[in-house]
Amino acid sequence: MNLRRPEPADVLDAHERLGIAIRTPLLRSDELDARVGGKVFFKCENLQRCGAFKFRGAYNCLSRLDRQAYPGGVVAYSTGNHGQAVATVGRMLGIPSTIVMPYDAPSVKIAKARAQGAQVVLYDRRAARREEIAARIADANPVAIIPPGDDPFVIAGQGTVAGEALQALSGANVDVVLVPCGGGGLAAGTCLAVEAFRSKAEVWAAEPLAFDDTKRSLASGQREKNLRLDGSICDALLAPTPAVLPFAINRERLARVLVADDRQVLEAMRFVYEELRVVVEPGGAIGLAALLANPEALRGRSAVVVASGGNVDTGLFMRALQSAGDRVAA
Amino acid sequence: MNLRRPEPADVLDAHERLGIAIRTPLLRSDELDARVGGKVFFKCENLQRCGAFKFRGAYNCLSRLDRQAYPGGVVAYSTGNHGQAVATVGRMLGIPSTIVMPYDAPSVKIAKARAQGAQVVLYDRRAARREEIAARIADANPVAIIPPGDDPFVIAGQGTVAGEALQALSGANVDVVLVPCGGGGLAAGTCLAVEAFRSKAEVWAAEPLAFDDTKRSLASGQREKNLRLDGSICDALLAPTPAVLPFAINRERLARVLVADDRQVLEAMRFVYEELRVVVEPGGAIGLAALLANPEALRGRSAVVVASGGNVDTGLFMRALQSAGDRVAA
Repeated sequence: MNLRRPEPADVLDAHERLGIAIRTPLLRSDELDARVGGKVFFKCENLQRCGAFKFRGAYNCLSRLDRQAYPGGVVAYSTGNHGQAVATVGRMLGIPSTIVMPYDAPSVKIAKARAQGAQVVLYDRRAARREEIAARIADANPVAIIPPGDDPFVIAGQGTVAGEALQALSGANVDVVLVPCGGGGLAAGTCLAVEAFRSKAEVWAAEPLAFDDTKRSLASGQREKNLRLDGSICDALLAPTPAVLPFAINRERLARVLVADDRQVLEAMRFVYEELRVVVEPGGAIGLAALLANPEALRGRSAVVVASGGNVDTGLFMRALQSAGDRVAA
Repeated sequence: MNLRRPEPADVLDAHERLGIAIRTPLLRSDELDARVGGKVFFKCENLQRCGAFKFRGAYNCLSRLDRQAYPGGVVAYSTGNHGQAVATVGRMLGIPSTIVMPYDAPSVKIAKARAQGAQVVLYDRRAARREEIAARIADANPVAIIPPGDDPFVIAGQGTVAGEALQALSGANVDVVLVPCGGGGLAAGTCLAVEAFRSKAEVWAAEPLAFDDTKRSLASGQREKNLRLDGSICDALLAPTPAVLPFAINRERLARVLVADDRQVLEAMRFVYEELRVVVEPGGAIGLAALLANPEALRGRSAVVVASGGNVDTGLFMRALQSAGDRVAA
């Protein structure tokens, strides 16, 4: 693992390298602006390859892999978007990938990783920690671990989301960039991107209520733990504690952390469906959910709000739509 | 009304003028390519302002309005995307708009037009034709009629959808541009765009089964009528007969017309939701529906498939998602 702290220049470098990523659109609506009392540019990483921004970090990292040193390829531990991204990028670049997943992960997710040619290693989450399994695999084989946050190239790759948005909006005033926050890699990359692209925007993060480890860690100055690892629909954001490298950056640069609960997240998913016509996963909607729940937060200002992903169970998505039943019948 | 036949140069001119439109993304997926046996770039005009490509034609037309000749602004007859686009562009440009709608149109659509500042004139669709009501308004007031298809600037504006896609894909091979077809304005604009952007792509259209007036008109050489004006979920495509100016262009240049039925359209809507994570309305999904229903059509070729809009009733959208129930439960 590479624990060099990334710099703003790493984001510019990743930005050059990531021509292969979709330049995702910035959507807006008058209705949305009216609701938050400001101006919102909704950055649709749900439309990114693999349906999430994680493609960026994975590509920025894997495309630099020393293939002679790691002929066995890469290993990642993730049930979700990071694992899918590593498997997909591995296939694109001809790099073998191994993804460590709990055996009770949704079978569609296991099948999707295998469809990308990944080798899937299943484990019992009550009996083992995924990081340890990945470390054991890396000890026994010539493979590189691709962590979801603790890697300078992953962080810099995630930073290109904001970089691309700020570049597209050059000339427009952007006061805030608001990103979902799990382990903190996206937030940290965003902090670097703002400097790299010479923006004066503040970086804000949004976390699920009761999974506000980054908020509490910023307050205490050390990496705090979440009390639980389940109990929120925002499956993409349930890291146990801030990752080390991201937190080193976020503690210095992150200006504010907002929170939202599951009901607010479902309402935001519905709002995005109705007004912007895209599908966001719960974790991807949390920034907007937090703004809608805190209507004073953005008053009179402008923000890039990052929708981090769109990989959501249809049952859950329909729950979000049904919360709109009465309005739709009107 | 301006019945000059538009030329390819009009599309280039509209392309210059439409910097204000969203450059909508071209999405793709390996799963989609595998299903059609070719390469598909899905052009997301569902993410356009107002949720449909109609913004382009409306803006290209209204932004040229002679305001001294028409101090009363513009009038349009449309329950759907064209009417919303004219109302929205009117508001943007400070041009008063009047939208003629049947009194039994969905109240949300009437409310949306009014929210844009439009004056809504309601009529009884059993007792009057909307074109006549618009003509009567234009006779009595200094207002210009903005028809949905029979206008060179509207057609040229719609052509910028394909123009933008071909420009973004310059260098890539595009064999086909496939567009939804109601009155034929989008298809005609696309034919001009292909020439304007020096592409060799064929232009194909897709129509709802039993509303294949353009297909039959191309075969007979004259403008044929649909037998009915309801009975398909593709509400955006139920024009009674091809519009005059578009048909003059389409009869010379349109290479092929495919059809799809409601069930195929619902399945395509679900597929787009699952694979591309965007919301398309039935008419917007018909191109993809026709390709999925005719898996030999694109074999080994590449196509830009235009998703024309995303304005769909939530009840209908959930019907589309439910058709996936068994796969989701897997």
